[in-house]
Amino acid sequence: MAIKYELIKECKQTGARLGRLHTPHGIIETPIFMPVGTQATVKAMTPEELKEMEAQIILSNTYHLYLRPGHDLVKEAGGLHKFMNWDRPILTDSGGFQVFSLGELRKITEEGVTFQSHIDGSKHFLSPEKVMEIENALGADIIMAFDECAPYPADHDYVKKSLERTTRWAVRCKDAHTNTENQALFGIVQGGMYKDLREQSAKELIALDFPGYSIGGLSVGEPKELMYEVLDYTAPLLPKDKPRYLMGVGSPDALIEGVIRGIDMFDCVLPTRIARNGTAMTSVGKIVIKNAKFTRDFSPLDPNCSCYCCKNYTKAYLRHLYKADEILSSRLMSTHNLHFLIDLMKQVRQAIMEDRLLDFRNEFFERYYGISHL
Amino acid sequence: MAIKYELIKECKQTGARLGRLHTPHGIIETPIFMPVGTQATVKAMTPEELKEMEAQIILSNTYHLYLRPGHDLVKEAGGLHKFMNWDRPILTDSGGFQVFSLGELRKITEEGVTFQSHIDGSKHFLSPEKVMEIENALGADIIMAFDECAPYPADHDYVKKSLERTTRWAVRCKDAHTNTENQALFGIVQGGMYKDLREQSAKELIALDFPGYSIGGLSVGEPKELMYEVLDYTAPLLPKDKPRYLMGVGSPDALIEGVIRGIDMFDCVLPTRIARNGTAMTSVGKIVIKNAKFTRDFSPLDPNCSCYCCKNYTKAYLRHLYKADEILSSRLMSTHNLHFLIDLMKQVRQAIMEDRLLDFRNEFFERYYGISHL
Repeated sequence: MAIKYELIKECKQTGARLGRLHTPHGIIETPIFMPVGTQATVKAMTPEELKEMEAQIILSNTYHLYLRPGHDLVKEAGGLHKFMNWDRPILTDSGGFQVFSLGELRKITEEGVTFQSHIDGSKHFLSPEKVMEIENALGADIIMAFDECAPYPADHDYVKKSLERTTRWAVRCKDAHTNTENQALFGIVQGGMYKDLREQSAKELIALDFPGYSIGGLSVGEPKELMYEVLDYTAPLLPKDKPRYLMGVGSPDALIEGVIRGIDMFDCVLPTRIARNGTAMTSVGKIVIKNAKFTRDFSPLDPNCSCYCCKNYTKAYLRHLYKADEILSSRLMSTHNLHFLIDLMKQVRQAIMEDRLLDFRNEFFERYYGISHL
Repeated sequence: MAIKYELIKECKQTGARLGRLHTPHGIIETPIFMPVGTQATVKAMTPEELKEMEAQIILSNTYHLYLRPGHDLVKEAGGLHKFMNWDRPILTDSGGFQVFSLGELRKITEEGVTFQSHIDGSKHFLSPEKVMEIENALGADIIMAFDECAPYPADHDYVKKSLERTTRWAVRCKDAHTNTENQALFGIVQGGMYKDLREQSAKELIALDFPGYSIGGLSVGEPKELMYEVLDYTAPLLPKDKPRYLMGVGSPDALIEGVIRGIDMFDCVLPTRIARNGTAMTSVGKIVIKNAKFTRDFSPLDPNCSCYCCKNYTKAYLRHLYKADEILSSRLMSTHNLHFLIDLMKQVRQAIMEDRLLDFRNEFFERYYGISHL
């Protein structure tokens, strides 16, 4: 087996779990936030900087790397770790979410998905077998099965048919996956916002005995309360001795609420994307750096932060860099936001350890959102 | 006196000089290449990275900082060093070159220059007194007098009138400069491509006894041979006990030829600008990273380079980053190009020390340009 999940402690107040995920490239403390390196680079960051902020694992996107530079090239380079100079664990998604997001540009059949590249319009075909070939070539420690992420809203009949095909594709992925010694294949639980369908999907996938499970089809436009409701009944369906990964979630409130409901792993482009747009997540809430009130603010972005950006630069300088469209703006803001989420998860793990996760949540929400409860 | 130039050795083969420039923020080994940080940041770099590549001094642009964020704000931040987190020496230009480059957008009188901002079209006025106010507020170790950089070509009569005004402005700058203890004001020798005018300009400025001299009005479109000819007769006019700075020059051949003619300091945006456009300067010549031949080239950018980029990444990865428009592309390519020029000057200093500068030049040109002599 490529990975092993070690359950350290279950929270006495909530469904939260403290764990250790053993992978071929090292041990990951969970719950964990994974920075996203879509095109074999976490935007604006070097691997050394990610290590300095204690990033333990990063995610990269199969769809993007398949199209450019191509998985065969990455394999020839010695795999994704070597290609991008990152020797800690990597997780690759299946490309499913990306191709289904192409809308008019893709067509789904039982066999797989035909789609057009967003780069040059060229035609491509992804099937469970092809996705396994790509992910095996990339060589990530954790790889995702090819699934359909049903849209929101979608009716019960559509979602049922879709999840059943996702199960059939999961079987095909399992059969096609050739590197089980070094790469752990996760199944993805679908079922939209329907409890019976989530139960059906979980049951079918658990029967296939994957080394870990993702919860897909959430954070796709539904209200957050609905996402939490789905997590409330879906997470407990999953085996306790396997890691649970909620895909595409990265806002501080959703991370904490996800952990409370038993999620171990999260990823999202949010921290780096809003950083490049000049928004910082800080211990006292969001900051939009271009605001005129920061023109002569010579204090750090976050008074309670120890990241490279906050130790060395002022809001006035960051505002100047942003307005002058300087690359250092994206670098410093991304450094801070990634550090913020990674550090948040460290505090969350500490709170689970000390059985005070609900108190931590309430204090955090009050500081960050200015509300006593979400 | 803010600075002191220490002449260590004169080359036996050429006009080259080995020296040490003592400044309020440390000692600079000359000849030296200075990376350019136009808007209070060397594009895509952190100060720590510049130190790692042994950058000893950087340049920043008065025109840009005056317009954004404003010199008063920088002063309030504690000066440019503190604002941008750089504790080694800084040199600021006078803004003359930038405002004169605005063409139709500026008007020159004896009093100064009226111009429109390239950012928002707002109207501004720069005079020798105003430029000193700005440069004093920024607080660089070395500051430039406000001069007119005559265009190329320009007739003898225009250039003569222009250089005489530059001398009158130099007197006004000297009178207006308030921080002589911590900031050294350099005079700028003009005179276009006319020997008699260069002699006149040098004579007039030397009489004003500046702590250092720049040679301006070169690298403005004239053939390189003509620039070398002007340097041949201009550099020897300057006092031996003062540093000599050739503005806006950064191609490897011009750096070496400039040193041979007695220049101590150079600056140019070239290494960082071409880096962002995907071009690298290497020990075996220029490389355009997007070229298809590098698609599967898993060797470093420069086989003889010890920079962070060359130690950790392949041409195939750099080509991927460039084509994917990733910020890390600009970072890594800029790191390499700056390291290359800083290291080139280190080798030049070593060659002067060992009295083999001409041999070094010939070997370098053969490797870099594939020619035995320029």
